[in-house]
Amino acid sequence: MVHHNDMSTGVQVRAAARSGTLTGQTSGLAPGFAQANLVILPAEHAPDFLLFCQRNPKPCPLLDVTAPGDPVPRRAAPAADLRTDLPQYRVWESGRLIAEPPDITALWRSDFVSFVIGCSFTFEAALVRAGVGVRHLELGQNVPMYRTNIPCAPAGRFHGPLVVSMRPMRPPDAIRAVQITSRYPAVHGAPVHLGFPEAIGIADLSKPDFGEAVPILAGELPVFWACGVTPQAVVMAACPALAITHRPGCMFVTDLRDEELAVG
Amino acid sequence: MVHHNDMSTGVQVRAAARSGTLTGQTSGLAPGFAQANLVILPAEHAPDFLLFCQRNPKPCPLLDVTAPGDPVPRRAAPAADLRTDLPQYRVWESGRLIAEPPDITALWRSDFVSFVIGCSFTFEAALVRAGVGVRHLELGQNVPMYRTNIPCAPAGRFHGPLVVSMRPMRPPDAIRAVQITSRYPAVHGAPVHLGFPEAIGIADLSKPDFGEAVPILAGELPVFWACGVTPQAVVMAACPALAITHRPGCMFVTDLRDEELAVG
Repeated sequence: MVHHNDMSTGVQVRAAARSGTLTGQTSGLAPGFAQANLVILPAEHAPDFLLFCQRNPKPCPLLDVTAPGDPVPRRAAPAADLRTDLPQYRVWESGRLIAEPPDITALWRSDFVSFVIGCSFTFEAALVRAGVGVRHLELGQNVPMYRTNIPCAPAGRFHGPLVVSMRPMRPPDAIRAVQITSRYPAVHGAPVHLGFPEAIGIADLSKPDFGEAVPILAGELPVFWACGVTPQAVVMAACPALAITHRPGCMFVTDLRDEELAVG
Repeated sequence: MVHHNDMSTGVQVRAAARSGTLTGQTSGLAPGFAQANLVILPAEHAPDFLLFCQRNPKPCPLLDVTAPGDPVPRRAAPAADLRTDLPQYRVWESGRLIAEPPDITALWRSDFVSFVIGCSFTFEAALVRAGVGVRHLELGQNVPMYRTNIPCAPAGRFHGPLVVSMRPMRPPDAIRAVQITSRYPAVHGAPVHLGFPEAIGIADLSKPDFGEAVPILAGELPVFWACGVTPQAVVMAACPALAITHRPGCMFVTDLRDEELAVG
């Protein structure tokens, strides 16, 4: 039996995932430690995907990239093992989901390169600390996400539209949120848009492409941030023979402090 | 005959104002040097007005406050003389405009306290440098300004609504403008509102209370900043027996560099 008060650090959350006692969402665990998206690709695709991330830093802020075959993200969590330390994984063959195992040790290959990509949990925690309400957190829901008409800069086989997350806010909070999230370029940074969803190709905010819709109240603006679902959607669309990611919500909890990722 | 290339520093602009060769607007002169609003009050009103500025730093960012009778703003421009160095002044008796002289030496009193208050020219220059279009500058107009329903925090006899300036922008530029102007808290800082004029008591953007209206194009948001007209309006409403200000547009050009006023 694992209690949440056993999960106050990245080390503890990863140990619980490794031992199999934690198999679900990581939201709210290890507060103050940065959580991350994970994309694992065979080395043949790694240079193009690395270039894709370099060209699209807002949706794909890289916290760490491993050497081929090395399961240890030496910058983000030098004592971690990416084969065992996430609660659940997704395995993709030619763009199709084929399994959701709690451990990928048996699938590991000497040519796997892992990309650890910043996640909005970090800036959401900063918003909450500043008293800026985050609707989907207040409702206990997943954030609504939308495909836009904004193309990412392509790199080799990797291309596709920017995916954004949306948080409705009153204008003074939207201004404050621009200030706060600008401090966190390593976790998507400032918003990419606010106010006019149709201007970025979103026809209906009540029908997100991923996650769950949230109500937008009178006097609130929809505020849009680049989203870590972008690189996953791009990888799936590129249909590599094999790719492994985290299961949505079951993030990799790093040893990096949220505040280490802040600038200024 | 004074040419604009003789006006590349605060020292030069002030000398031209002092000699009487410059009697008009200072916009665009001495690029890179901070320009300022001026409010001069008898010492009896100075403590309350100082407190008003302290309580309302967004509309009233103080760059300098002189000692009673001292015409030299020792922090903002230690070689300047506030009695002669502005192109034109306004003299107010009990809230009524009675004169617009080019020099106030003859009116000077040993109990006058001068308040040098940051001006949006500084952050507008930063916006333009960053490639963010500023509509009224592009049109060669004065910025549109509006009384809001947001009360300033009162201090003694000084009270009144916040006055804001408005610049229409596409959403990505509005986000960039929040980032850029947040660096300049000494010149009004980040916007106070964007998107919903009616939420701050502005019924019709085409009818500004001061300045000139500018067109707002499809897909643009109105972005509102606290404005240096606020302290002037507050002083006039308080009807002190005597007050002196700059004539609108005829600012005090300091020796402070715009970039000295930036944080981060």
